[in-house]
Amino acid sequence: MRRITSHISNLFNPSQKELTRNLEHLLGFRPIHIRYYELALRHRSKTEEDDCNNERLEFLGDAILGAIIAEYLFKKYPTQDEGFLTELRSRIVRRETLNNVAMRMGLNKLVQYNVQDKGLSRSHIFGNALEALIGAIYLDIGFKKTQHYILKTLIKEYVDVDTLEATDPNYKNKLLSWAQRHGHSISFETIEEKMEGQRRLFTIGVLMNNELIATGNSYSKKDAGQVAAQKALEVLAHQID
Amino acid sequence: MRRITSHISNLFNPSQKELTRNLEHLLGFRPIHIRYYELALRHRSKTEEDDCNNERLEFLGDAILGAIIAEYLFKKYPTQDEGFLTELRSRIVRRETLNNVAMRMGLNKLVQYNVQDKGLSRSHIFGNALEALIGAIYLDIGFKKTQHYILKTLIKEYVDVDTLEATDPNYKNKLLSWAQRHGHSISFETIEEKMEGQRRLFTIGVLMNNELIATGNSYSKKDAGQVAAQKALEVLAHQID
Repeated sequence: MRRITSHISNLFNPSQKELTRNLEHLLGFRPIHIRYYELALRHRSKTEEDDCNNERLEFLGDAILGAIIAEYLFKKYPTQDEGFLTELRSRIVRRETLNNVAMRMGLNKLVQYNVQDKGLSRSHIFGNALEALIGAIYLDIGFKKTQHYILKTLIKEYVDVDTLEATDPNYKNKLLSWAQRHGHSISFETIEEKMEGQRRLFTIGVLMNNELIATGNSYSKKDAGQVAAQKALEVLAHQID
Repeated sequence: MRRITSHISNLFNPSQKELTRNLEHLLGFRPIHIRYYELALRHRSKTEEDDCNNERLEFLGDAILGAIIAEYLFKKYPTQDEGFLTELRSRIVRRETLNNVAMRMGLNKLVQYNVQDKGLSRSHIFGNALEALIGAIYLDIGFKKTQHYILKTLIKEYVDVDTLEATDPNYKNKLLSWAQRHGHSISFETIEEKMEGQRRLFTIGVLMNNELIATGNSYSKKDAGQVAAQKALEVLAHQID
């Protein structure tokens, strides 16, 4: 009897009705299994229980989004190599891009989080909630329809792929200017060149104050330097944050 | 006229017929668009042209496999957190696991590569070809059927998920024993502890001969140490390889 009552009360839960309406407005389609979406929108700062927040759905949504964007780029750029595709996908799905999309969609208004914690709104919780939302959509309506939603609505309206393609993040410049501001010396060094099949593979190292802090591999020296600089920035960000 | 002739000759290409037969035997279903599979099985050591090897399909297949395994683990372990799911997925899809699966399936017999290059057979070209094959299967028969093939055949027959779950790779031990063999000193240091929401986030650094070579973050010190050790091993592998 208890289960039936709770089922009925869920059916008529006014907050679920409101959420369904809000999501329909946000997504352009009516969600069926609202409980997935409730979970997707619950940040861990809002719940005591470990498995009642959106992090598992974020894991799932991240993977689904990655696959859908991979196919999209594979078909959009039929002659570009896997290095290009990997780099462009990482620009589309990186936290900054997704957080920005989530804010512009208005998803931030639906996310449940501890508003007292001022640090949270500066982190990427809305971008993470967007990934969780994609996980919820996938569980709710399946791969094909999720793919359609992501490509025909999300990417089309909120992500400028051509601009992302044209923008070179230039991690090397970023690293050098950071080091200059903080009084560190940075140098790049070719650590190794070796043949892999018919191609030459370069390993470039980043030295900060003559200590090796990161390395990068690529078939071009320029790219290997960029990869190494990006990794160095990650290592430094962990130390500084 | 030339195009028609080439089309007809393709239709009756005896090597395509043989490949179709071999793949049907390997996969348990008859492939429809054989050209995807031809590409998936062509390593770059076998072709001069950049876009005629399997690397683009490897990018696609890696993403599709990642999504399918993500959902599989999400449902198999309904109460485990995203850290557990991420770690277990990485064990399933890592190069060593996939290379091993590819060899046991017999995929290595179908991959076209330069057999003169002795280094290649020691690298992970068969595991990479397996990812490319998954990309080809996806383009050929779509998400749902690819998912069915991967879960009901590939994983079921060749991957022991429960053993992978139980096996702790213990990167810390691996790093320490490597350092001992090579006469280096290794130490772990807590670089930072900070609150993120209601949880404490630890950053652990790996120092080799008193130089910081890698850092790792996690909500537990033990895990952060493992992540840092794993990254240190990657940095060292790039220098040593």
